[in-house]
Amino acid sequence: MVDSVEVCLSPQLIGLYELKGKTVVVVDILRATSCMTAGLGSGLKEIVPVAEIAECAPYREKGYLTAGERNGITIAGFDIGNSPFGFIEKGKLGHKVVMTTTNGTQALHKSREAGRVLIGAYLNIGALASQLLETGGSVLIHCAGWHSKPNIEDTLFAGALVQKLASHTEYFCDASLTAQALHKSLKGDPWKTLKKSAHFRRLDKMGFQKDLRFCFEQDVFTAVPQLEGERLVLKT
Amino acid sequence: MVDSVEVCLSPQLIGLYELKGKTVVVVDILRATSCMTAGLGSGLKEIVPVAEIAECAPYREKGYLTAGERNGITIAGFDIGNSPFGFIEKGKLGHKVVMTTTNGTQALHKSREAGRVLIGAYLNIGALASQLLETGGSVLIHCAGWHSKPNIEDTLFAGALVQKLASHTEYFCDASLTAQALHKSLKGDPWKTLKKSAHFRRLDKMGFQKDLRFCFEQDVFTAVPQLEGERLVLKT
Repeated sequence: MVDSVEVCLSPQLIGLYELKGKTVVVVDILRATSCMTAGLGSGLKEIVPVAEIAECAPYREKGYLTAGERNGITIAGFDIGNSPFGFIEKGKLGHKVVMTTTNGTQALHKSREAGRVLIGAYLNIGALASQLLETGGSVLIHCAGWHSKPNIEDTLFAGALVQKLASHTEYFCDASLTAQALHKSLKGDPWKTLKKSAHFRRLDKMGFQKDLRFCFEQDVFTAVPQLEGERLVLKT
Repeated sequence: MVDSVEVCLSPQLIGLYELKGKTVVVVDILRATSCMTAGLGSGLKEIVPVAEIAECAPYREKGYLTAGERNGITIAGFDIGNSPFGFIEKGKLGHKVVMTTTNGTQALHKSREAGRVLIGAYLNIGALASQLLETGGSVLIHCAGWHSKPNIEDTLFAGALVQKLASHTEYFCDASLTAQALHKSLKGDPWKTLKKSAHFRRLDKMGFQKDLRFCFEQDVFTAVPQLEGERLVLKT
């Protein structure tokens, strides 16, 4: 059982929600939280999410690989961009990674006040839902959006997660109900609507079709990354 | 034809959108924009929306009726609360009204930079869509939400309006696509989901069942209130 499920559709709205004592699930389907899940699920030791590019250098000196993008493009000189396949490849070698992204890292930083911060993606949705149901309490799904505006892929994922918790939850906020209805309405063929979305068209144009497909595959990993201080790790 | 349709799900996000040169449709289905439409559609001469209760007194002295609620309750000593039936009754007598509400007035005030500000509700959705298609340009649907959080009834209405413009529009933002999918998913029986929503349950508990039903009736009026300086009027 879960006491309540809320959805915050943009980091710009997160100040309206009580975070203390809640489990916050940070979501940035295209592609930060998909990458985090894929990387840790493939063997990365830890990922340190940072807001600014300049914050990566001290970690690099300590042997971390650097990962990051700005507006979809790998940052010059970085080891990994923002493709889950890059994370899987490096993950297998057991590296540590410092990572900066446009929207996902920001949402993560704004979630720090919460009792617990988890990483959500389609890639780990089943394991995530099981863990949420096991630990109970109040859940807040924090969608990273795009430059502070709500986006359709994060809202859609939030709805899929709400749906998985639905029969074990007493209270949903309006945004949860909206996201759940969106998920139900598109589950037959999400691609038809997703293809019209701003971010999808942007990534599609940049040649990321393989990433786009992969980020909507369910339960490829059982890893549920969790924030521990400054680092994302898998709790054992 | 309309160039683009965007949806802003909360007044807290309106700063992220360019307003200049656009037509902004302000939406607060339960109940401010339903009341405005019902009132002007029934014969009110004008409605002056104000943010604070104290701003109503100078208008009262000039012969305006006072209308307003705080958290759903009619303000003590005011002539009308926030029921469309109150507005219809006074409308028939051709009064002028000064009005303050929790969410709707705030959204309206934050929309003033736009080229044109219209009032949207299910009660006038057909006439509104026709007018938008006739004048063209870029449309931004500004949902009032509830205490700055997105709510389901305004999002649902935004989706219904997007749907009416869909085949005549080139560009939709992600929130438009989300709202449209919500509308499509609930159009068979919106009440099942609406009844779970926070605001609906609050108003239902307060005995406003008749208002709740009425605010979802379509095309009862052909009035499309428009902001002209400080006043909402019907353009002839």
